[in-house]
Amino acid sequence: MAKKSLPLSKVYSLLESGPTVLVTTARNGRSNIMAMSWHMMIDFEPPLVGCVISDQNYSYSLLKATKECVINIPTLEIAEQTVGCGNTTGAKTDKFATFGLTASPAKQVRAPLIEECYANLECRVVDTKMVNKYGMFVVEVVKAWIAPSVKKPETLHHIGKENFMVAGKHIKLKSKMK
Amino acid sequence: MAKKSLPLSKVYSLLESGPTVLVTTARNGRSNIMAMSWHMMIDFEPPLVGCVISDQNYSYSLLKATKECVINIPTLEIAEQTVGCGNTTGAKTDKFATFGLTASPAKQVRAPLIEECYANLECRVVDTKMVNKYGMFVVEVVKAWIAPSVKKPETLHHIGKENFMVAGKHIKLKSKMK
Repeated sequence: MAKKSLPLSKVYSLLESGPTVLVTTARNGRSNIMAMSWHMMIDFEPPLVGCVISDQNYSYSLLKATKECVINIPTLEIAEQTVGCGNTTGAKTDKFATFGLTASPAKQVRAPLIEECYANLECRVVDTKMVNKYGMFVVEVVKAWIAPSVKKPETLHHIGKENFMVAGKHIKLKSKMK
Repeated sequence: MAKKSLPLSKVYSLLESGPTVLVTTARNGRSNIMAMSWHMMIDFEPPLVGCVISDQNYSYSLLKATKECVINIPTLEIAEQTVGCGNTTGAKTDKFATFGLTASPAKQVRAPLIEECYANLECRVVDTKMVNKYGMFVVEVVKAWIAPSVKKPETLHHIGKENFMVAGKHIKLKSKMK
């Protein structure tokens, strides 16, 4: 999917709606993917994101060791693959191969971008103080990519277990909020 | 709206999809409401929620002082009121009166429930260590309420400025995720 650079000041608008995302990590030439719904924006610019990742996840140790990841935002077209990534462990599975997803090189981090996701956010871990207590990493988005061809991305929003809500209609309300 | 008690173990399924919520606080007999999109689940049970609130918000000082709030989840029916709460400051406005919202007493905290919201989560602040650096409060949900009459809540999801996405169709995918 052709991507263009997205100004970092616009990153918050991709994440504050709470989509399920796919987090990629890489170490020693091996990449992994995990599904994540527990994240939030912490600051606009530079964009800071809080991510809660259980130490039961294979990606936890990779992120802790490398301090780099990519937050990839999937849409309905790859819903099955997204849930597949959430159902398997990278300790035993090459998820790119298993789910037919395409890794492409990032610009500023070693973790790969997932081609099939309409947006990719290259991130560095900037604060690990809450990792032991809450499994919470604070990451800074250092480079962002978006597919201009995707006008209204049908993002996935987890509502527990096997249930997801798909992004619905868009509305405009006279908001002074950023 | 008639509500029933919701087991605390189910709270995560209401928040992990990233809805815009209305946070109520109260101090010295006065209540306030703020709109918030920057939140995430941190733990299942007891349910812990991270909330990023700017010190520019009137609710920031109320929450810091009282360490209590209610997270109310609005739906499309009260989208205008929700954005209205985000566009005004409680320092100058009685938001319940201005927007025609109804306050009803909570069971475990002094902040009120918003009747017109389909779910209400009574919360206590349990960790303020990240407040100065990130404006991040960790709150524990101590009591949860839900309206059994609302089967598929059309929650609001902020995607920047005046743009919101409304909860769309629901899908089931074979997920082992909780």
